[in-house]
Amino acid sequence: MLSDIEIAQKAKVKPIAEIAKKLGIPESAMVPYGHTKAKIALDYIDTLKSKPDGKLILVTAISPTPAGEGKTTTTVGLGDALNHIGKKAIVCLREPSLGPVFGMKGGAAGGGYAQVVPMEDINLHFTGDFGAIQLANNLLAAMIDNHINHGNELNFDVRRIAWKRVLDMNDRALRQITVALGGPANGFPREDGFDIVVASEVMAIFCLSTSLKDLKERLGNIVCGYTKDKEQKPILAKDLKTHGAMAALLKDALAPNLVQTLEHSPAFIHGGPFANIAHGCNSVLATQTALKLGDYVVTEAGFGADLGAEKFIDIKCRKAGLKPAAVVLVATIRALKYHGGIEVKELSKGENLEALAKGITNIERHVNNIRNNYGLPCVVAINHRTEDTDAEVKLLQDKLAHHGAKVILARHWAEGGKGAVDVAKEVVRLCEEPNDFKFVYDEQLPLWDKMKAIATKIYGASDITADSKIRAQIKKLQEGGYGHYPICVAKTQYSFSTDAALRGAPSGHVVNIREVRLAAGAEFIVLVCGDIMTMPGLPKVPSACSIDIDDTGKITGLF
Amino acid sequence: MLSDIEIAQKAKVKPIAEIAKKLGIPESAMVPYGHTKAKIALDYIDTLKSKPDGKLILVTAISPTPAGEGKTTTTVGLGDALNHIGKKAIVCLREPSLGPVFGMKGGAAGGGYAQVVPMEDINLHFTGDFGAIQLANNLLAAMIDNHINHGNELNFDVRRIAWKRVLDMNDRALRQITVALGGPANGFPREDGFDIVVASEVMAIFCLSTSLKDLKERLGNIVCGYTKDKEQKPILAKDLKTHGAMAALLKDALAPNLVQTLEHSPAFIHGGPFANIAHGCNSVLATQTALKLGDYVVTEAGFGADLGAEKFIDIKCRKAGLKPAAVVLVATIRALKYHGGIEVKELSKGENLEALAKGITNIERHVNNIRNNYGLPCVVAINHRTEDTDAEVKLLQDKLAHHGAKVILARHWAEGGKGAVDVAKEVVRLCEEPNDFKFVYDEQLPLWDKMKAIATKIYGASDITADSKIRAQIKKLQEGGYGHYPICVAKTQYSFSTDAALRGAPSGHVVNIREVRLAAGAEFIVLVCGDIMTMPGLPKVPSACSIDIDDTGKITGLF
Repeated sequence: MLSDIEIAQKAKVKPIAEIAKKLGIPESAMVPYGHTKAKIALDYIDTLKSKPDGKLILVTAISPTPAGEGKTTTTVGLGDALNHIGKKAIVCLREPSLGPVFGMKGGAAGGGYAQVVPMEDINLHFTGDFGAIQLANNLLAAMIDNHINHGNELNFDVRRIAWKRVLDMNDRALRQITVALGGPANGFPREDGFDIVVASEVMAIFCLSTSLKDLKERLGNIVCGYTKDKEQKPILAKDLKTHGAMAALLKDALAPNLVQTLEHSPAFIHGGPFANIAHGCNSVLATQTALKLGDYVVTEAGFGADLGAEKFIDIKCRKAGLKPAAVVLVATIRALKYHGGIEVKELSKGENLEALAKGITNIERHVNNIRNNYGLPCVVAINHRTEDTDAEVKLLQDKLAHHGAKVILARHWAEGGKGAVDVAKEVVRLCEEPNDFKFVYDEQLPLWDKMKAIATKIYGASDITADSKIRAQIKKLQEGGYGHYPICVAKTQYSFSTDAALRGAPSGHVVNIREVRLAAGAEFIVLVCGDIMTMPGLPKVPSACSIDIDDTGKITGLF
Repeated sequence: MLSDIEIAQKAKVKPIAEIAKKLGIPESAMVPYGHTKAKIALDYIDTLKSKPDGKLILVTAISPTPAGEGKTTTTVGLGDALNHIGKKAIVCLREPSLGPVFGMKGGAAGGGYAQVVPMEDINLHFTGDFGAIQLANNLLAAMIDNHINHGNELNFDVRRIAWKRVLDMNDRALRQITVALGGPANGFPREDGFDIVVASEVMAIFCLSTSLKDLKERLGNIVCGYTKDKEQKPILAKDLKTHGAMAALLKDALAPNLVQTLEHSPAFIHGGPFANIAHGCNSVLATQTALKLGDYVVTEAGFGADLGAEKFIDIKCRKAGLKPAAVVLVATIRALKYHGGIEVKELSKGENLEALAKGITNIERHVNNIRNNYGLPCVVAINHRTEDTDAEVKLLQDKLAHHGAKVILARHWAEGGKGAVDVAKEVVRLCEEPNDFKFVYDEQLPLWDKMKAIATKIYGASDITADSKIRAQIKKLQEGGYGHYPICVAKTQYSFSTDAALRGAPSGHVVNIREVRLAAGAEFIVLVCGDIMTMPGLPKVPSACSIDIDDTGKITGLF
């Protein structure tokens, strides 16, 4: 069996100009990056505004497990399948971060016969967008410490700097550091830390911006820190006059990247915010552009349907005025058995209907959320594995029958687009159905009530709690003019609860808010419920050790 | 009068495909980055090997002063002038670092009517090469701390880690830090620091590599740290199995970037190592490629002719088998008066023959070094300023008459290529003269004697010194198999001595070696003589505050 990279390297990749032409993009609007990648010029995108939108299809998943679900693979496979049945479909994905590429999880360009290419480029800093975001983020950080060093006119409290530096690297040694040591020439010592670049607020802003103007305004609104006085007033990036230079650094990056799938379906890959402390979807500009150019746009959101899909709807769709037409919920039989209590090592031991039945509670909750709380029609796509038994598939189909979502086996991983034709047909059907799309909460509700709505409606929690300090912070934001912002929940992706070990569909739990972060540029409030890791570490044997390149430039070991 | 960026933005930039075509580069060998930038594919460059080389012209300068000399401007202007008189000339430059762009000095794309374009792109992370180098550097750093965290099999002494992280940012707060704080999950705490990306050994390696194979081998030889035992054995990047992934990150970056001057002369801009702890020249691959494609190649080296030119010759030319045909030594009357003791504020006070006569000692020493110690013919190009008086120019010409270098006024800044035609004609003439090109020292000399040769022959020093600890380190390297490496001197660029305040041409001083660094991947030994800054800081009012971008993407405030 061929590895992902072998399949990708055997593929005949078409010139990107050909893919763009098929979409009606004039050559003058293409900004080529080599012959198989291009950015689409922002001024051309502006001219598309009056065109009608295609149908937006969200691919989401059950609560993630170490067994793997295959969300990106399904997004790519469904895009190919829609094209296969004669529809004009475009895929929209996030850009891979180098953290998982060099760490353990690998790249994010799909897998098997459902991949985007050139996979090596896409996985290895691509067109440089993350580099630009890193620079914009770190320019602001340098400007903050520099301002303090040169007299601190804005009266920063060095204990309340709210801006970290970032790198696109899993580097645990940078999580907690002290900076500006070594005497007066190096500034005022303080505690600090690095995040990975996908956790930068600049990444979230980049992905939510609808124009260069919007981008610059949002960058200007970033809260860098607070004044050292009783009022603790926020100090913004525009107070430091840094937002213009930050936007200048991002000028090329902001244009969406166009590539292709193995079957030459067009794919926009642009931006990649974390799905915990940020909203976890590709850029608004990429999605909006794809909707103008295609009849069907297949996109994905991070983590499971409780986190990524909720943020996709309540943050991205709300703010960008997007209206999804249908949802594909991805699962594997294997992952559902894991949710039923089977450990990873035991998963290959064959049919286990009992565990599956238990694990199905997880997918049932997600299906119900999608249909009832998001008001969207839904199909369940089971990423087929050879070890899945007929009885297992039938059990899942039976269990979900009364929830109003068809369960369809998808074989795009092994067969490419034609393996997902049944899913594609069902998606087309669902897109024609009237839907009752709605947000989980009204924007005008108080912050506390919004969080409660998410926790009780989506997570199945009985209530939310927070100690008085956190409540006071939320109150301050509510009164400080940030009450209309949506909530971005940062919690474990592995469970509906805040305890990663609680698989299946835990109910009646209490969600405790441990930390509040204002993302004034991204325009949401992050409520942290549990430990979240914004700078991952490398494993004992990182993937980086296996990645190699030969004298001719051929890369191996990437997956 | 128009600013540099206004001139650049008014320029009619030709499609880069047209520039490449003029050079005979087939379209299939072009890797476009937008329509006005391209990389030239490495496999095409391979096919050029049997072609004869053009003439290599080095542009260098007097010891730098705050008054400004205009080395890059002259390099660009001379390239245009050579094309103007019907020669096929190519310019080779270093890529600008964002440190000076956001700090004080500004970009590095030339000035006035002698610029390379698109200047905004070139100055603002260009084709992403520095980003790739940053990632390769920081991957190795993360792998080192990760290895130590997971058991430290290679027995790193955490007090003797020899690898720093880098960012392309002036950020003084990162000069001296402590990392891995916060408990066992974050690793073993230690002192650390960041350098700016141009100071990374990966940058030096990148610029000295002649192929992807050579690059990977050199990356593998980087010394990451030393073992915690009596032997203190070096631990290499290849021991950590990281060089393959590092090379994979650099695969696109390694191909040279092609752009154009305002007058459409081809310009390769590739790589940009510091001229203090590294060798300060653009990539070998860019220079070699330009020599195959042009009849004249005009390139520059960092700082003055004592530092940049010496390293260009003793490191880059020696290692890459390059043989320069002529040298252009750049100066301004203003800068020479500064060398004669006049402070910057006083420089605009009109003619001052006395100060000029005193300052000319600096240029005399450089001319003599170029002609006698490098064995190369030389022309002095005076970057003309309107305030220069005839008497001042005549004094300089008279003083240099017996040194065998013509003094020619150059007006490319105001007039473009035609303003430097006289310099170009002299350069063409010099290139036809036989020359006696030689290195400052023989590679086989002991390290100590090589340093002494540079100091006494080039700097005019009487001797070199070092305390016993430093002598022991040099001895250890000499005996450890590194004795045949060239020396890369890191010292102040402002003086022939190690005291930045000693202008003109100090003699008889003693050069003290304060620190020794092995660059086993770059294959040179850095001898640090004085304070050197590998992470600059931002000034009180950084240029970043003035850089802006409007809604249409037009950038202002860049210079």
